[in-house]
Amino acid sequence: MDTSNWDSLVVGGTILTMEPGSEPIPDGAIAIADGRIAAVGLAEDLLEHAPTGQVVTAGGCLILPGLVNTHSHLAMTLLRGLADDLPLMEWLENHIWPAEKTHMNREAVRLGTELAVAEQLLAGITTTTDMYFFADEVASVLAEAGMRGVIAESLIDFATPRCKTPEEMMEKQRELAQHYRKHPLITPSIAAHAPYTVSANNLVKEAELAEELGVTLQIHLSETRWEVAKLMEEKGRSPVAYLADLGVLSERTVAAHCVHVSPEDIEILVDFEVGVAHNPVSNLKLASGVAPIPTMVEAGVKLGLGTDGAASNNTLDLLRDMQLTSLLHKGVLGDPTVLPARTMIEMATIGGARVLGLDAEIGTLTEGKQADMVCLSVDGPHATPVFDPWSHLVYAARSSDVRHVLVRGKLVVGNRTLNTLDQERIESQAWDFARRLKR
Amino acid sequence: MDTSNWDSLVVGGTILTMEPGSEPIPDGAIAIADGRIAAVGLAEDLLEHAPTGQVVTAGGCLILPGLVNTHSHLAMTLLRGLADDLPLMEWLENHIWPAEKTHMNREAVRLGTELAVAEQLLAGITTTTDMYFFADEVASVLAEAGMRGVIAESLIDFATPRCKTPEEMMEKQRELAQHYRKHPLITPSIAAHAPYTVSANNLVKEAELAEELGVTLQIHLSETRWEVAKLMEEKGRSPVAYLADLGVLSERTVAAHCVHVSPEDIEILVDFEVGVAHNPVSNLKLASGVAPIPTMVEAGVKLGLGTDGAASNNTLDLLRDMQLTSLLHKGVLGDPTVLPARTMIEMATIGGARVLGLDAEIGTLTEGKQADMVCLSVDGPHATPVFDPWSHLVYAARSSDVRHVLVRGKLVVGNRTLNTLDQERIESQAWDFARRLKR
Repeated sequence: MDTSNWDSLVVGGTILTMEPGSEPIPDGAIAIADGRIAAVGLAEDLLEHAPTGQVVTAGGCLILPGLVNTHSHLAMTLLRGLADDLPLMEWLENHIWPAEKTHMNREAVRLGTELAVAEQLLAGITTTTDMYFFADEVASVLAEAGMRGVIAESLIDFATPRCKTPEEMMEKQRELAQHYRKHPLITPSIAAHAPYTVSANNLVKEAELAEELGVTLQIHLSETRWEVAKLMEEKGRSPVAYLADLGVLSERTVAAHCVHVSPEDIEILVDFEVGVAHNPVSNLKLASGVAPIPTMVEAGVKLGLGTDGAASNNTLDLLRDMQLTSLLHKGVLGDPTVLPARTMIEMATIGGARVLGLDAEIGTLTEGKQADMVCLSVDGPHATPVFDPWSHLVYAARSSDVRHVLVRGKLVVGNRTLNTLDQERIESQAWDFARRLKR
Repeated sequence: MDTSNWDSLVVGGTILTMEPGSEPIPDGAIAIADGRIAAVGLAEDLLEHAPTGQVVTAGGCLILPGLVNTHSHLAMTLLRGLADDLPLMEWLENHIWPAEKTHMNREAVRLGTELAVAEQLLAGITTTTDMYFFADEVASVLAEAGMRGVIAESLIDFATPRCKTPEEMMEKQRELAQHYRKHPLITPSIAAHAPYTVSANNLVKEAELAEELGVTLQIHLSETRWEVAKLMEEKGRSPVAYLADLGVLSERTVAAHCVHVSPEDIEILVDFEVGVAHNPVSNLKLASGVAPIPTMVEAGVKLGLGTDGAASNNTLDLLRDMQLTSLLHKGVLGDPTVLPARTMIEMATIGGARVLGLDAEIGTLTEGKQADMVCLSVDGPHATPVFDPWSHLVYAARSSDVRHVLVRGKLVVGNRTLNTLDQERIESQAWDFARRLKR
């Protein structure tokens, strides 16, 4: 074992590597060299080679891969709770879109993204995904804050706060991809809003652009009954089949929602190796429905969890959403064995990594992968006792239990404190924004 | 205004009294005299009469009535996460019942109840409900810890860890009721396990006993499809109709679950003024199903929220469960307007109080009622910004945001610290218990 280049060691705690079939490693340690995992083992073995650099003590913690958020609109944290308990179109047309049009300029996108990054890192999310406007601003916030992200400027057939035309949006997408081609944290991506807001012509162009740039293509897909009915009426087939026939689907596709998918749709998703971002809270809150997640797991669809934007969630908290997802499908299907705890943690880690095409780099605590991890405290009455770490994480743990978070070996959250962002300044500016918006 | 007897003042923060139609009171204050609310108003008005006693500063908090947990088996916190993702009967027969039989003695019930009280107080629950064994032990833990509770020894037709016969259980129920007849915190109650585990004869006796003692009668009711089918087969009617025909139902009844209730059942629940404890997490986790809560709200059923025991939840966290309840029913019914935020907070406060027959004493912040309240911090990225306090509480707040908790005017949690229990000792003993159980 070459230990000369180790620069950090995370020591103590029970390690859940999330490798297939792996058992928890009690009293474990993880060595880090140049942002990557150099060794995973017992603390007593690795401590012999303690580095002179950073030592992170995680005694009594559960240590797991950083959580992966596969779908969000980060800057919408600024609209958290602006409008709730409303029908989708009233919510969008009378509240969200007007607020975005008037207030979501470049500066607001920066601020809202900062707020989202702060919230997510403190909740153990180390990789996030964004489709919104001013993607260059979003990417620069994440890069500065030391968070990993799959970032896209979103294309839609009408003007956005940033761009007047789809052509202009494509240009911004191209620029971002070129700028972040080899960045250690930012994975550029592109996004087309949805099959019902982007023309067939532009959808095809986007798929070609994703191929040319070698990036993922994010899209909202089969989110509502209304969308499915509209596509059936206008195109004579389901949204999934429509995209497949256009040649838009591939292993590059990150499809958000997929609530209303038929068995034939699911077959298509498997055949084209499409990644699906499941957004349980948003789907319930906007009453879109309940996605057939257990069926998709069974069929072998690549599945990850997404928070969606804070305007429809209202928190970016995957620990909470893991519990909700598992409970929801048990109750709705009448089967308490579906989506057991370990499956949920896989979905929130390596599953999400697969959806984003990053599973060679993140998603498990494996030698050679990026050192992205969460150390979660197991204390407090709500966390006592623990008979099984998987069950604990899904059914009892809270994001306030997150003690340390490392991304690429860097301690971005240490002892529950954000090291890379000025949390007080961000919160204060977010309140100012809300006051302006309410005027 | 007679201010001479004020002994405490809670100052600052936005007050949500939860009185019908009330608006939030910003920069409010609440005066307390002898454990009761003496005045609710603006801080600037009440501060003129500041008492010499305790002043609780709650600047930047939301102040609301203490949350009310209408159904639980408190000591089962010790079995938290012992067995998950299993079918109900396997869970009960192979895991929960054997563990209870071997390990749930008087000492364990005390410890588990202490753990549950600690967890609940820290999560803003000021009134809880229990049906289990060794109710005298349960009641004494709550009384010592300063928590309000509706406590019952549970009757079932076979032996419990405490009693051999139903007659013995009734005797314990009677003793408890007599002992706590006029206690300021403990409201004695009685409990019959369920229509399928208690004979018609004993059910009737229990209803008579509740009437004689002037207490509530708790019972599990229409929890599973299996139960409904069994009663239909054996008694020719639904569990609800069966109890109604026996003369067991009344405004004293606290019926837990009511997942599988027909329109006729709901009419009966309304007619007899039965209180229903909705346990959304437990119903999903054990795959019992989704109770028709919006229909029951519409029909005028008295409704509160319950956590159920930690073995089927796995946390006693009503803030989390409020979010889940609202989301679940929106998604399942396809209507984003059902169970809006304020309805959920009513259900978790005054609604629960009504279910337990305590609405004259608790459930709103009203002059003359008990001074049971929660001051919830609004800070941290997940809590920024707040456009609407109701939405914030249901969709974004976490139990880790709970800063102060008062029960009967006493600060049982101050600055997130439990004042009335030795949390460290309890957690350490709970871990010891778990290690013994696993052996």
